[in-house]
Amino acid sequence: MVFHYPNGHPSHYNEASKQKMQGKDKSINFANRGMRFEDAINQSNDYYRNHNLAVIHKKPIPLQIVKVDYPKRSAAVIREAYFKEASTTDYNGVYKGYYLDFEAKETKNKTSFPLKNFHEHQIAHMEKCMEQDGLCFVLLWFSSLKRCFFLDSKQLVYYWRNKENQKKSMPITTIEKNAIEIQPKIAPRIPYLEAVDQYLQAKEKN
Amino acid sequence: MVFHYPNGHPSHYNEASKQKMQGKDKSINFANRGMRFEDAINQSNDYYRNHNLAVIHKKPIPLQIVKVDYPKRSAAVIREAYFKEASTTDYNGVYKGYYLDFEAKETKNKTSFPLKNFHEHQIAHMEKCMEQDGLCFVLLWFSSLKRCFFLDSKQLVYYWRNKENQKKSMPITTIEKNAIEIQPKIAPRIPYLEAVDQYLQAKEKN
Repeated sequence: MVFHYPNGHPSHYNEASKQKMQGKDKSINFANRGMRFEDAINQSNDYYRNHNLAVIHKKPIPLQIVKVDYPKRSAAVIREAYFKEASTTDYNGVYKGYYLDFEAKETKNKTSFPLKNFHEHQIAHMEKCMEQDGLCFVLLWFSSLKRCFFLDSKQLVYYWRNKENQKKSMPITTIEKNAIEIQPKIAPRIPYLEAVDQYLQAKEKN
Repeated sequence: MVFHYPNGHPSHYNEASKQKMQGKDKSINFANRGMRFEDAINQSNDYYRNHNLAVIHKKPIPLQIVKVDYPKRSAAVIREAYFKEASTTDYNGVYKGYYLDFEAKETKNKTSFPLKNFHEHQIAHMEKCMEQDGLCFVLLWFSSLKRCFFLDSKQLVYYWRNKENQKKSMPITTIEKNAIEIQPKIAPRIPYLEAVDQYLQAKEKN
């Protein structure tokens, strides 16, 4: 079998503009490869798609378009638009008949994952998807530790809805106990479908 | 049981700008209610979401952002951006554990549905999703006839991949034979989940 390395991914205007917008450099090197976590996820999605293993896409960032110019004989140009808050999670798609829906987040912290990384509308969206038997989860990246976890959204929602925990953070010990650790590799960078398989197997047993 | 009428839906900047961009008014009244087909689908999705029946969203239109301004003390403004071609279909989500993926298209024609309404990348995307056991379909609206059909993507892809049919159109007689007709109503406007149920029941029998 020929081993395909993932193609170099074009630079993401979305990420770049979002970073700039927030006025701070959020680039945390991904496993010393000069790559951000989100880029690693996008490359993994490309890998899975190109190998016909799953069809997962990142959704475009929603924008409120206010003004568009229509120059003669050339493409329409958006001249005024604003970033809008998304009403869903960033990623969804299909894998072996399962509806997958997830969010990928990173922290520089070493001992816990701050819950402020998530928003109420994302939690509400995951709850609605789980009601429809969607497979919802979050991928958590501890950039300082270079450790990645697959956490079932049920765990996150349970933790989030517990008032004592709100706006606090989830200790890494809790994550280690309840999540599935993912070992980053070359291709795909974040082999999260292995964690999905492991999760489904454990679910079948119960 | 209290009967909820769907809320008035905010005007869609995407649709408005896309229409303007194309320099022509594509507004075809939806069943004499002054509504476009796409708006009717969006309202139906809202209805299904609000009633916890399914979680289906229209994806934001992807844009290539070139220039963003960061005025002090106010939101970032996109000053130059271009419309990009989407690499997927417009709608996806989850219903009773099924991954749903679809495209909604309309025609003024009365006797056939022009295949130029679809693009190769949409067909390829549907093929990939079907390989993963996703439930893929198209919603076809004959605006002059006020008739709506649910057509399994397998049928569309089969027709599309037949070289003789390419860039031609699918006769309404073929659609009547192979698709499930949907009767528009008040809420949801396009009760396409009824067609999905009917399709799943027929599939189970075979």
